[in-house]
Amino acid sequence: MFEFEVLATDGRARAGVLHTPHGELCTPLFAPVGTQAAVKAVTPAQLEEVGANLILANTYHLYLRPGHTLVGEMGGLHAFMNWAGPILTDSGGYQVFSLGDSNEIDDDGVTFRSHLDGSTCRITPEQSIEIQHHLGADIIMAFDQCSEPYGREMNERAMARTHAWAKRCKDAHTSTNQALFGIVQGGVFSDLRAESARFIAELDFPGNAIGGLAVGESKEELWAMTELVTDILPAAKPRYLMGLGSPADLVQSVARGVDMFDCVLPTRLGRNASAMTSTGQLNMKKAAYAVDRRPVQTGCGCYCCTHFSRAYIRHLCMAREIMGATLLTIHNIYLLQRLMAEMRVAIMKGDFDSWQRKFSRGWSP
Amino acid sequence: MFEFEVLATDGRARAGVLHTPHGELCTPLFAPVGTQAAVKAVTPAQLEEVGANLILANTYHLYLRPGHTLVGEMGGLHAFMNWAGPILTDSGGYQVFSLGDSNEIDDDGVTFRSHLDGSTCRITPEQSIEIQHHLGADIIMAFDQCSEPYGREMNERAMARTHAWAKRCKDAHTSTNQALFGIVQGGVFSDLRAESARFIAELDFPGNAIGGLAVGESKEELWAMTELVTDILPAAKPRYLMGLGSPADLVQSVARGVDMFDCVLPTRLGRNASAMTSTGQLNMKKAAYAVDRRPVQTGCGCYCCTHFSRAYIRHLCMAREIMGATLLTIHNIYLLQRLMAEMRVAIMKGDFDSWQRKFSRGWSP
Repeated sequence: MFEFEVLATDGRARAGVLHTPHGELCTPLFAPVGTQAAVKAVTPAQLEEVGANLILANTYHLYLRPGHTLVGEMGGLHAFMNWAGPILTDSGGYQVFSLGDSNEIDDDGVTFRSHLDGSTCRITPEQSIEIQHHLGADIIMAFDQCSEPYGREMNERAMARTHAWAKRCKDAHTSTNQALFGIVQGGVFSDLRAESARFIAELDFPGNAIGGLAVGESKEELWAMTELVTDILPAAKPRYLMGLGSPADLVQSVARGVDMFDCVLPTRLGRNASAMTSTGQLNMKKAAYAVDRRPVQTGCGCYCCTHFSRAYIRHLCMAREIMGATLLTIHNIYLLQRLMAEMRVAIMKGDFDSWQRKFSRGWSP
Repeated sequence: MFEFEVLATDGRARAGVLHTPHGELCTPLFAPVGTQAAVKAVTPAQLEEVGANLILANTYHLYLRPGHTLVGEMGGLHAFMNWAGPILTDSGGYQVFSLGDSNEIDDDGVTFRSHLDGSTCRITPEQSIEIQHHLGADIIMAFDQCSEPYGREMNERAMARTHAWAKRCKDAHTSTNQALFGIVQGGVFSDLRAESARFIAELDFPGNAIGGLAVGESKEELWAMTELVTDILPAAKPRYLMGLGSPADLVQSVARGVDMFDCVLPTRLGRNASAMTSTGQLNMKKAAYAVDRRPVQTGCGCYCCTHFSRAYIRHLCMAREIMGATLLTIHNIYLLQRLMAEMRVAIMKGDFDSWQRKFSRGWSP
């Protein structure tokens, strides 16, 4: 049900297909984030229009509101949010550490206070899997401990816990129509990353994720760890680098053998008057755009760029119109979807190197 | 270019067609409000999908930001906001009085402070028309003084000014592809309303509006004034009641011979977690909807109701997701568009009375 086919490789880069109960996913792919069972500022119809296929929802947020049992009672996330395509839920680990107040972590799990009402909650690996069973996403994630990138002892402890929890998640996972992915940790330490990649690979998950990157380390460290880990993770399984979303970073990671990505970047930037382009971000509030008749990005085929001028988008952003956020979110997600699709074609053609050189000289979707 | 055809009458109710440079408008009609050249929380594509044809934009807001000369330089409102259908701009009068700080009104015009930056601005009838020429809407409005409904002397003064300004607006209006509508004032005073209706009618505008209603008077007074004024205004010209938007009020007004309406109600309610129904408003945050699988309104054909449950909409509203505002705005505007279309059919069939009785027993779009 979750067969992964690598259709072509070009250097380390791969193009593939991941089969899920809710349809095929062409890789490399980028998944927009729908934290609270909604991708911020866009409807499912608009998401379909920009070519999004996989979307990510957050276990931590949905556990707190509206509650995983309610979502389960409503038929799971697909029915609840009316998304016919594949869905992925994270394990809640990252949010427990980044959003929960007064976390207390022990070998069995994490106790924390809800960021909504201060109530005390506890998530264990088994509880994370149970929540994700109720949510019913196609791909679910093992409960891991994401640590700061530096500090060897801290990373050793977090890795050991992540490994023990990965086993417990695997044991607790009984649903057959959901694929459980393991997560590699290890900070910026080559030996820890290698050990973690081997350990997680051996557990034989249908897919493997790389966690704990893009959390403050340098780009050199990010790429070194990515390359090291993708070299160890099995080639026959999809590789998922969590939390990466700038065009340049996506290209760099695909070049190093990563197949899947998610990030709040396109949606968050969209709500903050920022347009993604291949060469960086445009602050759409700039006075320079006041009478600029060009689209946000020349040549872009999205609804925003084919219908509206920079001048109008700037006006919407200055006037704090919701539509400004909607249109820039549409543009940003579309741009990443086109980027992934183009990379896929280049890999299939065995042309990825020259595509990458072209990309670095400037690119529009 | 602005020919108005009354196709059918049923009692006082009328069904017609108003020709504009940007297409035909079937009446009775409801125009959603796009205050800042954007209907809040929805895209033009979504507006088209719900069947909106005429949209209203606010002269006062656009004068202050981004500025009417900028909009003019960008090709006018149609090009700026990419709306191919007809647009109507108000005169700015209502907002100058309700939003401007420290207004000083004299017979020549109004001096006020911008609600955005406190700068001193002045709008005269001639200036209002000039701004509206730059904005380039199909239908533009005479600059009027909207007063409180009660207080005879105040209403006499406001009416006299409105009449003098209507003449000046007519003289200042030189654009041939924009239709200038006059506005009747007079508060809740029958003799003033009658005098104002006769005066405005005599100026022979291509359309006539009723202003200064739905501003705090009783329903009895609202309907009495509406009936009195529509009886005097020429039957061959469209009649526009400004600022009315609840389903029940629209039905009552159409029954009294009004052809056109605008109101922020459907969009404002949508952003405040309220769904319009024929029998009143639903507060979508109610706990009762937490696991309610029904659509917002059973039988409604809008994108919101055909795709999402009350439970999901409630979750979006509780979680303050922008999409909650978008979906409820879509529902609310769709509901009013369907309401107007159904009334039109009933009038054409000579069946309006029995339709109205059916409506009062409960109605869904």
